Amino acid sequence: MENKIRIAVDAVGGDHAPAEVVKGAVEAVKRYPDIQVILVGPGELIEEELKKYEYPEEQMVLQPASEIISTEEAPVAAIRDKQDSSIVVASKMVKEKKADAFVSAGSTGAVLTAGTLIVGRVKGVERPPLATPIPTEKGMSLLLDCGANVDAKPSQLVQFAQMGSLYMENVMGVKNPGVAILNIGVEEEKGNALTKATYPLLKECRNIRFVGNIEAREIPAGGADIVLCEAFAGNIVLKLYEGVSRTLLSVVKKGLLTSLRSKLGALMIKPALKETLKSFDSSEYGGAPLLGLNGLVVKTHGSAKAKEITNTILQSRTFVLKGTNEKIKECFAGIERVRSTK
Amino acid sequence: MENKIRIAVDAVGGDHAPAEVVKGAVEAVKRYPDIQVILVGPGELIEEELKKYEYPEEQMVLQPASEIISTEEAPVAAIRDKQDSSIVVASKMVKEKKADAFVSAGSTGAVLTAGTLIVGRVKGVERPPLATPIPTEKGMSLLLDCGANVDAKPSQLVQFAQMGSLYMENVMGVKNPGVAILNIGVEEEKGNALTKATYPLLKECRNIRFVGNIEAREIPAGGADIVLCEAFAGNIVLKLYEGVSRTLLSVVKKGLLTSLRSKLGALMIKPALKETLKSFDSSEYGGAPLLGLNGLVVKTHGSAKAKEITNTILQSRTFVLKGTNEKIKECFAGIERVRSTK
Repeated sequence: MENKIRIAVDAVGGDHAPAEVVKGAVEAVKRYPDIQVILVGPGELIEEELKKYEYPEEQMVLQPASEIISTEEAPVAAIRDKQDSSIVVASKMVKEKKADAFVSAGSTGAVLTAGTLIVGRVKGVERPPLATPIPTEKGMSLLLDCGANVDAKPSQLVQFAQMGSLYMENVMGVKNPGVAILNIGVEEEKGNALTKATYPLLKECRNIRFVGNIEAREIPAGGADIVLCEAFAGNIVLKLYEGVSRTLLSVVKKGLLTSLRSKLGALMIKPALKETLKSFDSSEYGGAPLLGLNGLVVKTHGSAKAKEITNTILQSRTFVLKGTNEKIKECFAGIERVRSTK
Repeated sequence: MENKIRIAVDAVGGDHAPAEVVKGAVEAVKRYPDIQVILVGPGELIEEELKKYEYPEEQMVLQPASEIISTEEAPVAAIRDKQDSSIVVASKMVKEKKADAFVSAGSTGAVLTAGTLIVGRVKGVERPPLATPIPTEKGMSLLLDCGANVDAKPSQLVQFAQMGSLYMENVMGVKNPGVAILNIGVEEEKGNALTKATYPLLKECRNIRFVGNIEAREIPAGGADIVLCEAFAGNIVLKLYEGVSRTLLSVVKKGLLTSLRSKLGALMIKPALKETLKSFDSSEYGGAPLLGLNGLVVKTHGSAKAKEITNTILQSRTFVLKGTNEKIKECFAGIERVRSTK
């Protein structure tokens, strides 16, 4: 048991907590005997849910935390004031090496704040980016930064590219992933002040595979393994992705209900369509890690159901097993050395 | 004939020129006796196409221009070197008041450059924004700026909001349109340096209806009549809109071909689906005007077919009939006066 990978899970974060969170956690421990899930939250609430399942008991631990941070609360104040909240308690466990990772479907702002302020950054990392897996026609791409801090500097984008590459290679199993800058044209001279300053830096960067600029149009087709941007643009991409998909499917659905003929047709296509759209479903790829911290913090969708929680726990297992954080540390320790010898 | 609205149309711009352009122009003059279309391009080529149709001849004029600017050419050099190109000739006609508007499906860069350099800006306008109509669940919204100049200043965004409002009210018939800043959260304090500086300016702006911030997720649902941003973000929204729609429909189509049952179902839903998706088709709403010029320049999609050309010509007619440019001039003349009395 000593060597198990310990993953703290926010039992009260997300729209479907605690039921779906606990269900997802149970599934994860059943699937992999080498992990231990620490469910963090109000004890009675969690025990009530756990009663519904059978699972290897030594793989499931309960860590009491009486308070809950809602998505409406201002993140910094909530983290400061609610010391016994699941998010603060779990983040402290990661900081104190009592957990290897922390998974939450709760308030994005609070999770990002706790990650940065409590868990803390790896030495040399200027800013920890939130790296979000997005579905594409080919599978998935990693979009970063989607975090809360906008207007990043070129040097920070280079670090995002390096951490994103290590994540894609180690956790998502993409060998030698290509990194592209999100831009308004593919030519080097195109773009805004930030992309123009970042392009030459990435060209010189030896530990990533830089593939140039990518236009937003090519993201859904899977035009790059890693789509690099600052958080304002990242946020727009992420939310528009969701908005256009939602609206388009709603328009299609409405269309299917306009006549008897189309209603019958809709019944016939339903199973095939459901199967195909699954491949365009981001919950298949787990949550979004906040990279560059002294430990792993992963944010899943607020709407996450059991499957996404399970996937995110398993993704965290891979992250730890592959020593991803050690590789990130090495990467920036190396950079620090290079800098200090100059 | 003297009082006809004269619309110069680039006969050789776009993927389907000249055939679809001429077809669209013929349809437009047939529909409205008060317009005159000036087809600009190589004479023989245009005459060849015109032969196919019957139309009121006094409403169709040919303006020879021997050169063609391709989408691959660097815009500024092309405009300078190809003085007898359709884009340069038509832009000069607008400048010299020989045409009231210029419509082109050709190179976006060349059209924007010619508009700014040849036609010229209205006094007081800092930067002419490209305002693109985008389809939403409710109809359409106007996204601006989608032009070539990124990193706009707050004062420029305020001007975009004013011109966009006049366009929506006069040309698209939306009474008292709402303007929202594209942002990563709805709260006033959210965003990057640009949005934070723009928000208070818009709150104070008396000639628009400012409705606050909009997240990208809400754009496809029709969350705001006018979505305000600088061109880097605008470009991302526009191209991602296109990319997600294309990929999602391709994924759906693939799904429909997976079984005999789904293939049969697909045949049954086709007519209804086609009809519904039409409402989500941007070509219904015509082209994107470059606002704030001494005359009207409108860019349509490179892939525009006859229907979109017709719609764009009719949209230009409305623009002129409603005196939209006079209203833009008044708006900024007023601002100039206010400034000079301070």
